[in-house]
Amino acid sequence: MRIDELDTPVLVCDLDVLERNIHATADLCRTLDIPLRVHIKSHKIPEIAHRQLAAGAVGVCCQKVGEGEVMAAAGIRDILIPYNIVGAAKVDRLLRLAKRVTMTVAVDSVETARGISAGAAQLGGNVRVLIELDTGGRRCGVQSPAAALDLARQIVGLPGIDLQGVMTYPSRLEAKPFLDETVALLRADGIPVNVISGGGTGHEAASKEIGCTEARSGSYIWEGLTRVRSRDDLDPARCPLRVVTTVVSVPAPGRVIIDGGMKTFTSYPPIPYGLCLEHPELRIVGMSVEHGHIDSSDSSHRFRVGERLSFIPLHGGMTTNLHDEMVGVRNGQVEVVWEVAARGKIR
Amino acid sequence: MRIDELDTPVLVCDLDVLERNIHATADLCRTLDIPLRVHIKSHKIPEIAHRQLAAGAVGVCCQKVGEGEVMAAAGIRDILIPYNIVGAAKVDRLLRLAKRVTMTVAVDSVETARGISAGAAQLGGNVRVLIELDTGGRRCGVQSPAAALDLARQIVGLPGIDLQGVMTYPSRLEAKPFLDETVALLRADGIPVNVISGGGTGHEAASKEIGCTEARSGSYIWEGLTRVRSRDDLDPARCPLRVVTTVVSVPAPGRVIIDGGMKTFTSYPPIPYGLCLEHPELRIVGMSVEHGHIDSSDSSHRFRVGERLSFIPLHGGMTTNLHDEMVGVRNGQVEVVWEVAARGKIR
Repeated sequence: MRIDELDTPVLVCDLDVLERNIHATADLCRTLDIPLRVHIKSHKIPEIAHRQLAAGAVGVCCQKVGEGEVMAAAGIRDILIPYNIVGAAKVDRLLRLAKRVTMTVAVDSVETARGISAGAAQLGGNVRVLIELDTGGRRCGVQSPAAALDLARQIVGLPGIDLQGVMTYPSRLEAKPFLDETVALLRADGIPVNVISGGGTGHEAASKEIGCTEARSGSYIWEGLTRVRSRDDLDPARCPLRVVTTVVSVPAPGRVIIDGGMKTFTSYPPIPYGLCLEHPELRIVGMSVEHGHIDSSDSSHRFRVGERLSFIPLHGGMTTNLHDEMVGVRNGQVEVVWEVAARGKIR
Repeated sequence: MRIDELDTPVLVCDLDVLERNIHATADLCRTLDIPLRVHIKSHKIPEIAHRQLAAGAVGVCCQKVGEGEVMAAAGIRDILIPYNIVGAAKVDRLLRLAKRVTMTVAVDSVETARGISAGAAQLGGNVRVLIELDTGGRRCGVQSPAAALDLARQIVGLPGIDLQGVMTYPSRLEAKPFLDETVALLRADGIPVNVISGGGTGHEAASKEIGCTEARSGSYIWEGLTRVRSRDDLDPARCPLRVVTTVVSVPAPGRVIIDGGMKTFTSYPPIPYGLCLEHPELRIVGMSVEHGHIDSSDSSHRFRVGERLSFIPLHGGMTTNLHDEMVGVRNGQVEVVWEVAARGKIR
């Protein structure tokens, strides 16, 4: 089947570009001499994760326990969830996962660690733990090296907790003093630091430079070696994802309506949503839930109902999350239809 | 099971509020003496649609053929898709639906109508059709009464097309001249106008006033009788939907992180995302994909990891679309767990 025989809207992935991206970041990390851990939240598809591992990644990242369950069921053996896993129900699932695969999580409070430890007291087993450091990302994480040491001291002896080191996001040069001081404090206190996990697509070199033992990257598979921040960064040679749509209405001059809106493209970030491959001069100027509103005034082409238009979406991870399947194509030919197996795993 | 025993994040619906909303709009339309057609894209759950029908709605609206298939399979007999159905694959499914239920669609071009007619020539059967009028919504729709007449003349005789009238969105008083003139032109030309379909939650009275034969409303089930436009409009007595979350980190003074972000709440509309029921003084100031970033500086409460916070999301329809299930509760007790059966039906 060819891409133009697929009913629309449909999420399509150009496999040549995808594979180039997978290998480019794997090669970059090899050159930098830093292990790559790939974040599957960007695609949620086990086979893509396996291709990333085959290219050299040392393990995967998931953001939810449910994503980890999908990846473990697909045979993946090393999973990091850089997230505070809180609550007995999730801890129970986490501990069961930890009996099947190498399982690491982040914590930034003694409450999170105690919750995991309490679960382990009942269920047995243990979980590898990294202390999350807020080195400027202003999300989760302890606020200072002293606070990291304080937390490490409180949790290092907890049953079921296997403290392995620290993590941060994103990796930036400014984070180095925080990281260095934390590692020194922990080691001076006899606490092992085997792992220093850094992250962010485009931050792989920074991860190496600030002394990380691994670099977590995810969105590179949709964006190439550096982050896409605006429509001008969208390039079919480095962005493999396309939302293929059909024109359903050309109601007035300069106005074209396609059969995908916020529930197909996501509304993040709002406007300009994406780049049209066939007609880069088109601008998506708004979206209803199921309609895409296009301003075609800059185009000399006369659009007609039934015509197909393909868009590179601006945020691959958010777009993928809306789709039950993704169609992999090569030279316009369908090669694989993937279930987005970890989609919707909100817990 | 009680609501506080559910693992988070979880999408919860207060059934008392939902039922009040269902009956309030049904009663309003009865008082206005205008039939109500309910749009299921807001919830995508067959049993909610059945409750709306039991309260007096005359039929449902879907936005995608796939949504129509889910509703037909759940026993719903009268479905309008106010959308141009374009392409042989979808027309084929539409015609099969039309053999099982009363099936109506919108068209605004002869191309769309010819596509349906061509399918009917092969598969048999026919589809009820409304001509979509752009009375100011600036989305799809013919641009003038003369254009409506022109289109009606071209399609009224097409095999498989059962032209029933016209539709518009949203219903506004300014639309009346356009509607009146169109209906007069069509009738003078011998073309029947049995249906004049108007739409929009909060526009029911306007639908009646401009002469519509039915009012399409959907988001009223999440919002009550009028549209929610800002955080100030969110009221637990009229908004039944809640995203129940858990605090996973309190990393710094004034900062609270919850276990739901853009993939749980949707990013539309961006900020303020929702209202916290337990602590209305909290402000969601940002969202990562899986983290909600809350500014708690206005609160005197000392938040702790593991605490649960419930939010009324700002856009019920977009939020529901991210969840595989919705939990119906009454007085804090779980009464039903619904599969969001028509979620992800993008085609």
